[in-house]
Amino acid sequence: MTFKAPVKDMLFALEHLAQLDQIARLPGFEDANLETAQAVLEECARLNEEVVAPLNWEGDKKPSWWQDGEVRTTPGFAEAFRQYAEGGWQGLQHPVEFGGQGLPKTIGAMCTEILNAANLSFALCPLLTDGAIEALLTAGSDAQKATYIPPMIEGRWTGTMNLTEPQAGSDLSLVRTRAEPQPDGTYKIFGTKIFITYGEHDMADNIVHLVLARVTGAPEGVKGISLFIVPKYLVNADGSLGARNDVRCVSIEHKLGIKASPTCVLQYGDQGGAIGYLVGEENRGLEYMFIMMNAARYAVGVQGIALSERAYQKAVQYARDRVQSRPVDGSVAGAAPIIHHPDVRRMLMTMRALTEGCRAMAAVAAAAYDAAHHHPDAAVRRQNQAFYEFMVPLVKGYSTEISHEVTSLGVQVHGGMGFIEETGAAQHYRDAKILTIYEGTTAIQANDLVGRKTARDGGTVALAVAAQVQATEAALAADGSPDAQAVRVRLQAAREAYEEVVRYIASQAKADPVAAYAGSVPYLMLAGNLMAGWQMARALLAAQRELTAGRDVAFMRAKIATARFYAEHILPRALAQRDAIVYGADALKALALEAY
Amino acid sequence: MTFKAPVKDMLFALEHLAQLDQIARLPGFEDANLETAQAVLEECARLNEEVVAPLNWEGDKKPSWWQDGEVRTTPGFAEAFRQYAEGGWQGLQHPVEFGGQGLPKTIGAMCTEILNAANLSFALCPLLTDGAIEALLTAGSDAQKATYIPPMIEGRWTGTMNLTEPQAGSDLSLVRTRAEPQPDGTYKIFGTKIFITYGEHDMADNIVHLVLARVTGAPEGVKGISLFIVPKYLVNADGSLGARNDVRCVSIEHKLGIKASPTCVLQYGDQGGAIGYLVGEENRGLEYMFIMMNAARYAVGVQGIALSERAYQKAVQYARDRVQSRPVDGSVAGAAPIIHHPDVRRMLMTMRALTEGCRAMAAVAAAAYDAAHHHPDAAVRRQNQAFYEFMVPLVKGYSTEISHEVTSLGVQVHGGMGFIEETGAAQHYRDAKILTIYEGTTAIQANDLVGRKTARDGGTVALAVAAQVQATEAALAADGSPDAQAVRVRLQAAREAYEEVVRYIASQAKADPVAAYAGSVPYLMLAGNLMAGWQMARALLAAQRELTAGRDVAFMRAKIATARFYAEHILPRALAQRDAIVYGADALKALALEAY
Repeated sequence: MTFKAPVKDMLFALEHLAQLDQIARLPGFEDANLETAQAVLEECARLNEEVVAPLNWEGDKKPSWWQDGEVRTTPGFAEAFRQYAEGGWQGLQHPVEFGGQGLPKTIGAMCTEILNAANLSFALCPLLTDGAIEALLTAGSDAQKATYIPPMIEGRWTGTMNLTEPQAGSDLSLVRTRAEPQPDGTYKIFGTKIFITYGEHDMADNIVHLVLARVTGAPEGVKGISLFIVPKYLVNADGSLGARNDVRCVSIEHKLGIKASPTCVLQYGDQGGAIGYLVGEENRGLEYMFIMMNAARYAVGVQGIALSERAYQKAVQYARDRVQSRPVDGSVAGAAPIIHHPDVRRMLMTMRALTEGCRAMAAVAAAAYDAAHHHPDAAVRRQNQAFYEFMVPLVKGYSTEISHEVTSLGVQVHGGMGFIEETGAAQHYRDAKILTIYEGTTAIQANDLVGRKTARDGGTVALAVAAQVQATEAALAADGSPDAQAVRVRLQAAREAYEEVVRYIASQAKADPVAAYAGSVPYLMLAGNLMAGWQMARALLAAQRELTAGRDVAFMRAKIATARFYAEHILPRALAQRDAIVYGADALKALALEAY
Repeated sequence: MTFKAPVKDMLFALEHLAQLDQIARLPGFEDANLETAQAVLEECARLNEEVVAPLNWEGDKKPSWWQDGEVRTTPGFAEAFRQYAEGGWQGLQHPVEFGGQGLPKTIGAMCTEILNAANLSFALCPLLTDGAIEALLTAGSDAQKATYIPPMIEGRWTGTMNLTEPQAGSDLSLVRTRAEPQPDGTYKIFGTKIFITYGEHDMADNIVHLVLARVTGAPEGVKGISLFIVPKYLVNADGSLGARNDVRCVSIEHKLGIKASPTCVLQYGDQGGAIGYLVGEENRGLEYMFIMMNAARYAVGVQGIALSERAYQKAVQYARDRVQSRPVDGSVAGAAPIIHHPDVRRMLMTMRALTEGCRAMAAVAAAAYDAAHHHPDAAVRRQNQAFYEFMVPLVKGYSTEISHEVTSLGVQVHGGMGFIEETGAAQHYRDAKILTIYEGTTAIQANDLVGRKTARDGGTVALAVAAQVQATEAALAADGSPDAQAVRVRLQAAREAYEEVVRYIASQAKADPVAAYAGSVPYLMLAGNLMAGWQMARALLAAQRELTAGRDVAFMRAKIATARFYAEHILPRALAQRDAIVYGADALKALALEAY
């Protein structure tokens, strides 16, 4: 159960797809060149391969457990988290003024992938802490920032997001947790929150809960929700820890996967009210939480890529070791390692192409985020922001749905052994299932894609992206190699299907919302597929150039083969999705609700 | 966690697709009319809904456990098995002369689905026993039949299949278990078998192990394998139980799913040799085992349908109960049950269409089996046998792969609750994963489809089936309704894609076996999709006729909507698969083995 971070492929994506040299020209990112990226990724790989990855299966066997309101994490987790924090990894993407390293997301996202591939359950704690830091950076007061951000960046404290309640899952308008204003300007918080990841644990001295609640007398619905800091331990003026706050972990869930990560039910205010501090203004909580959620959504997409990578590596290893049957082409006289069998190779290539495609897509999205936040030209910032926002539901939705497919193939490659838990392939399959659910289900991502990202501007951004794809088609035509030609044909067909769907969705969103939203998830999958396939096509062009220059021949040849495989095996799915979206709404509407 | 057997849909499939009235005209099946079928299915439903289904989640929570060579099953299993046996269900499809009911497979398969939907782990014991009975009926001596079959049909004893060894999974040529001939005509068996389902348990008095082993001096490879009966307890001449045989369960596996079903490591011959009785002739063991396996493969396909049905019912229930968010079309003023949301309906319709499609396909295959075994005309028997053999890898491979998709959607419909084990949706998702692996992985089914079922006759049978599909297209055109027209368009496109693929596979199988077999699983999925979609199209035509006659209006309307949904949302996948198969081999071959 070894894991090796795919540093080489990451550096390729940074250099040739995300164009890190452009990022390194942005103000504040002057040091973020390819050499820095390489040094950071290699150091990140070392820690995660040696310390974090070996705890993955341990965590599945000995999940965190609850006793009397306290949660003990898997043995080894606390020490690994200490090393993670000491290495400065929690602050990688955060501002230097609060103790962070201030690196671009383009590099940071690769580190997120490595951490999550090593140990998804472990990685959730830093991931949620990142979100809490992000929210406070945007909406917290200076005093709140100074009090809470540095200890989180140092890894002494961690953060959580408290949104869900039993009756309020995807629908936050139903949140009932209440906040009573106190004379001293604080609030008393009362309510029950569920599904709180690392809501209680023994890896840090304090936990900064960010909690959605409704101030007494606030409006109904999402416009009456405010955001509060509710620390597990109150913080004294000098930053030292004071009294225990009135928040208790009353139980943790027994889950399909990510077992080492404690999923907590938190009870606020059973002993008179938990003390909470308002973040920003009253009734703007959802807006702030979305900052956190948008960062988290991108990160969950990266988790999908991470699990796919881990599952792929494991399957390749097994396919090299396991000897069964003679290859159909007679290339080996007797029984051979199963990697010689065409269908095993098809499965491995599918896993590989999907993983590399999603990674490439995420890298390009991260580069847009960095440009959107750091480029000196406002028009360039706006353009990149629009592209990034378009990409977030695709990175989240597509990469996580794909992680189901890839981890399932990972089990399948192992045959009967894959079904035995000790083999470890099944853990990735179980872990992956949460990724299409938390931080907004795939349907929620698809609603965002249809509503805010496509219908609102009549498909303008979506079609502008298609024009960029078309430019890549032209470059493939100019390249002229058989591989580029094969990719061009499939890319064009998928892009045309996408354009047809964008026009359909944009025109139906108001005219026939059931039809538009019935196609929302297939549209997300089509668009994600096209974005990943497009980046693989760009990767092919870059690899051809490198090959011509005689650089890294074996790697470049593999990249070209993988890009072509993506185009010929994965991109054609767009045709099926187009048909289902454009022609399929009537059949959906025809079944009466009571007939299900 | 209630389950209701889909008796109505089953009777529809029996009447209109499998044409049970034709089966009831076959010699020996005179009583197997629709009334019989209804009575049998309703009685089967009662037992399984009331007794077997409630034990499903119990079995997951308290799996069977091993101690000192003995296996205790989940509390309640033994009593349920007693009731199952007393009801005569084990003998449903077996000959009357051995105590069975002699019903056609067409009806029996529906009962298999009900049992498996109720409790997959429980159902595995009868399923394996069916296989053992089948093998002995074909290859056993009269004495062996008389000794072993009646107690199995009565449910006093159960049966197992012992194929796999640590080094011999899919590749049985590597079997090492050895059989030493004894002067009295028996054999002494020595070796280790793994993955033996219900290889040890406490639900019956005796276990009849059917074991593949190599007689001393037998040829290498599959041509040196023989089949033996190795009973757990030796059987005296009067049928009473004698001494304990030298076979021990040394451990059971810790698995991803089907946890209640004990998966045993069996050790033969540690105390001088287990006594075995040769079945049929030496070195023909694999041939006999394939009889058992072919019956089991069909049954595993039915398991896929069963899990899909169970997952669908559970998801519908949750979607009716769970209230979140306002529907996009404003049909409900406030938060509504999530079944009102288009994407939830898309998921439910996908689950429903796939389940009904696979059930329809399996029903038609079962009818062919019955005709192949009972029709007075040899030419009709041959034709049906060819059709049935073509369908077995599709029923097995497609229905089980589809069960992954359906059970995964089942979890997804539940959102965060789906990830909590107590909800029960995750169990179906975990259980489903074994179905594409045991009794031959999907790749093994696809090899069978490509090699024996397509290439061997140059695609004759495969293309004859396409001609039958084309006849249905003509009937759809004649029907003239918008629904029939919509289905016709998609069915034709899928059938044409299928024909192109059949010709490609048939022509490449020898010329370029890597290319042909690289496309084997996509070909299986395409063919399965077409077969299921074709049957749904036939179902639509039948439903239109019933509707015109004013019969069962709500059911028929739902069937038409579901058939159209299948055609517009599922059949177009064939286009993507066609492209991957016909154009995708070069990309697969391009990646060097060491580059993975």
